[in-house]
Amino acid sequence: MSHNLLQGKKGIIFGALNDQSIAWKVAQQCFAQGAEIVLTNAPIALRMGEINKLSQECNNAPVIPADVTSNDELKNLLEKSMEHFGGKIDFILHSVGMSINMRKNNPYTALNHEFTHKSLDISAMSLHRLLQLAYNMDAIKDWGSVVALTYIAAQRVFPDYSEMADAKALLENISRSFGYHYGIRNKVRVNTVSQSPTRTTAGSGVKGFDGFINFAEKMSPLGNANAEDCANYCVTLFSDLTKYVTMQNLFHDGGFSFTGVTKEIIEQMEK
Amino acid sequence: MSHNLLQGKKGIIFGALNDQSIAWKVAQQCFAQGAEIVLTNAPIALRMGEINKLSQECNNAPVIPADVTSNDELKNLLEKSMEHFGGKIDFILHSVGMSINMRKNNPYTALNHEFTHKSLDISAMSLHRLLQLAYNMDAIKDWGSVVALTYIAAQRVFPDYSEMADAKALLENISRSFGYHYGIRNKVRVNTVSQSPTRTTAGSGVKGFDGFINFAEKMSPLGNANAEDCANYCVTLFSDLTKYVTMQNLFHDGGFSFTGVTKEIIEQMEK
Amino acid sequence: MSHNLLQGKKGIIFGALNDQSIAWKVAQQCFAQGAEIVLTNAPIALRMGEINKLSQECNNAPVIPADVTSNDELKNLLEKSMEHFGGKIDFILHSVGMSINMRKNNPYTALNHEFTHKSLDISAMSLHRLLQLAYNMDAIKDWGSVVALTYIAAQRVFPDYSEMADAKALLENISRSFGYHYGIRNKVRVNTVSQSPTRTTAGSGVKGFDGFINFAEKMSPLGNANAEDCANYCVTLFSDLTKYVTMQNLFHDGGFSFTGVTKEIIEQMEK
Amino acid sequence: MSHNLLQGKKGIIFGALNDQSIAWKVAQQCFAQGAEIVLTNAPIALRMGEINKLSQECNNAPVIPADVTSNDELKNLLEKSMEHFGGKIDFILHSVGMSINMRKNNPYTALNHEFTHKSLDISAMSLHRLLQLAYNMDAIKDWGSVVALTYIAAQRVFPDYSEMADAKALLENISRSFGYHYGIRNKVRVNTVSQSPTRTTAGSGVKGFDGFINFAEKMSPLGNANAEDCANYCVTLFSDLTKYVTMQNLFHDGGFSFTGVTKEIIEQMEK
Repeated sequence: MSHNLLQGKKGIIFGALNDQSIAWKVAQQCFAQGAEIVLTNAPIALRMGEINKLSQECNNAPVIPADVTSNDELKNLLEKSMEHFGGKIDFILHSVGMSINMRKNNPYTALNHEFTHKSLDISAMSLHRLLQLAYNMDAIKDWGSVVALTYIAAQRVFPDYSEMADAKALLENISRSFGYHYGIRNKVRVNTVSQSPTRTTAGSGVKGFDGFINFAEKMSPLGNANAEDCANYCVTLFSDLTKYVTMQNLFHDGGFSFTGVTKEIIEQMEK
Repeated sequence: MSHNLLQGKKGIIFGALNDQSIAWKVAQQCFAQGAEIVLTNAPIALRMGEINKLSQECNNAPVIPADVTSNDELKNLLEKSMEHFGGKIDFILHSVGMSINMRKNNPYTALNHEFTHKSLDISAMSLHRLLQLAYNMDAIKDWGSVVALTYIAAQRVFPDYSEMADAKALLENISRSFGYHYGIRNKVRVNTVSQSPTRTTAGSGVKGFDGFINFAEKMSPLGNANAEDCANYCVTLFSDLTKYVTMQNLFHDGGFSFTGVTKEIIEQMEK
Repeated sequence: MSHNLLQGKKGIIFGALNDQSIAWKVAQQCFAQGAEIVLTNAPIALRMGEINKLSQECNNAPVIPADVTSNDELKNLLEKSMEHFGGKIDFILHSVGMSINMRKNNPYTALNHEFTHKSLDISAMSLHRLLQLAYNMDAIKDWGSVVALTYIAAQRVFPDYSEMADAKALLENISRSFGYHYGIRNKVRVNTVSQSPTRTTAGSGVKGFDGFINFAEKMSPLGNANAEDCANYCVTLFSDLTKYVTMQNLFHDGGFSFTGVTKEIIEQMEK
Repeated sequence: MSHNLLQGKKGIIFGALNDQSIAWKVAQQCFAQGAEIVLTNAPIALRMGEINKLSQECNNAPVIPADVTSNDELKNLLEKSMEHFGGKIDFILHSVGMSINMRKNNPYTALNHEFTHKSLDISAMSLHRLLQLAYNMDAIKDWGSVVALTYIAAQRVFPDYSEMADAKALLENISRSFGYHYGIRNKVRVNTVSQSPTRTTAGSGVKGFDGFINFAEKMSPLGNANAEDCANYCVTLFSDLTKYVTMQNLFHDGGFSFTGVTKEIIEQMEK
């Protein structure tokens, strides 16, 4: 149901690969709540994905390719978006992550550190690049809102999540640090949303994902949060109803993060 | 601006003393967003306050007195509210706190422990009483939402906050614990909102409140959050857009909680 | 192996019921490391326990009964201990906890709140009583060290731990709060040690303890910490090697607290 | 005073530049407590420093240069150390950090990302390289202990700490992640110690360090912890008395981390 919660707001959505993506649902929800959007992803992801379908759904939202490791391409994205919107940006969703070592099946105890640099660059430093460019171009409206998606592996070890946990810890720290500077100057808010494990194309790439999502389901009093509900939550964070929430890591996980054990898990232990 | 975000929802608001109260603003915002509400407070607070004015603003919302340390009075409140609403409750705001030792000017190193029991009973165990009654009466709708207001003194020491910090730590734990049980059975969510220091009648009673609110202002990249914005935030937590957020302590504080120091504070240190 | 790490130090040990108790091991280790000690427990626990055996092992350490809910008895304990030691106290172990509701098999959703008050009084406010008396009697030496035992249920929900989780959250907050005040005046340190579930007489009273300790074992990279190792850890905190550690909650749990899941658990989930 | 707490243990100390360095004090304390040590630092730091003096104090401890961004040099260090010790290693201190952007006076909102990669490589990924090599060479004894020094800027923003905060967040996550894997296989413990700001050569390079250390001093109930006490704390973590402590970030900071405000700061605010 639409409440026009984002009426008049303009935002950029990173990372909508296909209709399984959280970013896809966020784009749909933002549009449904009255926002105008620009879609972006890596050139290669745009070729693989079905983003034009999403664009059409969202009133022919522009699709602007950007390699997040390139300052030039990110700058181009911000410039083109502001041209399209005819002004500054209200909100940004950062839903970007890739682990080269995981793709190559290198376990955490046998990482290739060149790959690690690349993983950190794509998954975490991309947020710094983006915010630094926006800050210096003064591209985000006062009281604007930036959300980056993350995972609880940045707080506790989930062994199969491997180097992505390091990337997410870095991402969350960048979010806090830039949240300080952008908050001081422009009241721009920066937060991370730490979402339940979700059956997206990216998620499914994680080894042992099935056992793991099953564990999370049984460890969450409300069950795992799905992508649609995550999108709803992001909408609240982009809206004016959450103006003083910044520099936070916000768990959207059905209670997983503060559950030590559940009766269901205990019963499973006795099998 | 209303988005009818709470259209059709029914809630109970504890603790609206006067128009400085956060609960007062929450009641106004919930009503503006389409909710029906019931107001409640301690009998003595009702006599002191101006709650009838608020009731009138909110379509003559019933005002039902309840001493939060009495199971009978809380039970009566829940029963009367359900009668009035013609069904179960969607949301509850718990904004209740009082420190007898602070009233008596007993510092933290000279507490009267009988008073402490009373302070814990009013400020923290009241939430347990309320949730236990609601749970056993099955008074809250599935996916309902309960929010209790708290303060960061439950995580870090603010010496003048004294025994209220102990009460808030207990309150937050009760919120998590009951959030587990109520989440498992009815998907009911329970969260605490940890708000900036706010110039309410209750807040102003804290010794050294001025120096303290000034410090918080300078330590928050966005400045201290005010009561209106806190009310907006509570609205998002009562809405269906945050269905998988539970058992969390959510800072609504302009970034204070994750700021170690600011340039302004450093400059102040050099005076 | 003794390193005389506590040579010349004098301490009070609460809660040594029998040779399964963590406090029992702490007393033995402190004595082995050169400390003089006083033992204390509730009068009823002294009758049930075998504390005289421990006293003999520790050079006939005095056994002074004290009901921790009585200011008078705690005051007597401090006075008698200082008389015995011929001076102030260097360290204190608080290992005290009891849940009346758990004894009565009242689940968390059906607590008797009078019992809860009693549980909080014994398990948490006892630390405040003790520290307040010590503070006002100036009974602890500068740079002295106080340790209270706690459990991670104060951070995350373990449903069978029930109201003891609330008591531990309160205990930890009292520890931080008093750590501030006693630190400012006398450099006295106050910390909590959050120990793995341990097969003590108290632990075994928790419902579902077996499934639960088994889960913790599989979720801890080093396995559950035992009572002897906990005693060793307490020794380091009483020693002069940890002088600037205060107001902390310190996990002694084989890594449980920062492990999200282990391979062993995932395998168990697939059964 | 020596307690021979590390009698028979063999360890590697990274980062002793001069007698202001925390690592220098750790080396001295470990030696005083009976350990044999190997010293290491970057080749350029060895040229600048006075490490031979420290070596002589420590029974002519070998000084083995190693650039922490080079797998080959780290491998050589581990091999040479094991040759010297005639066996595996018991403990390692990682005290390594450098921010190229800070050296170049680039603020956090104008980072050169190539420099950031270099800073992360030196300050954080160096720990991963080291542990990965040790893991694959099986160079650390069962129940061995690794400590890396960090700073609270990884949890809260200290604006002048700039990109080093990102590096420390990454370091702490690597410590947790590798602590899991090394704990499972060899019971090796990995922890970080989060130390008060300290007047070392590295610390003094931080802009606004004086105002900042002054703030920390006034915000810590025990005052800022010094380097000697930090060394003592590291000794306890290398000893067998802390065998079940792993994957933790341990604050050694006089209570700063859990203090929200102090009376002294409030008074300063009123000036």
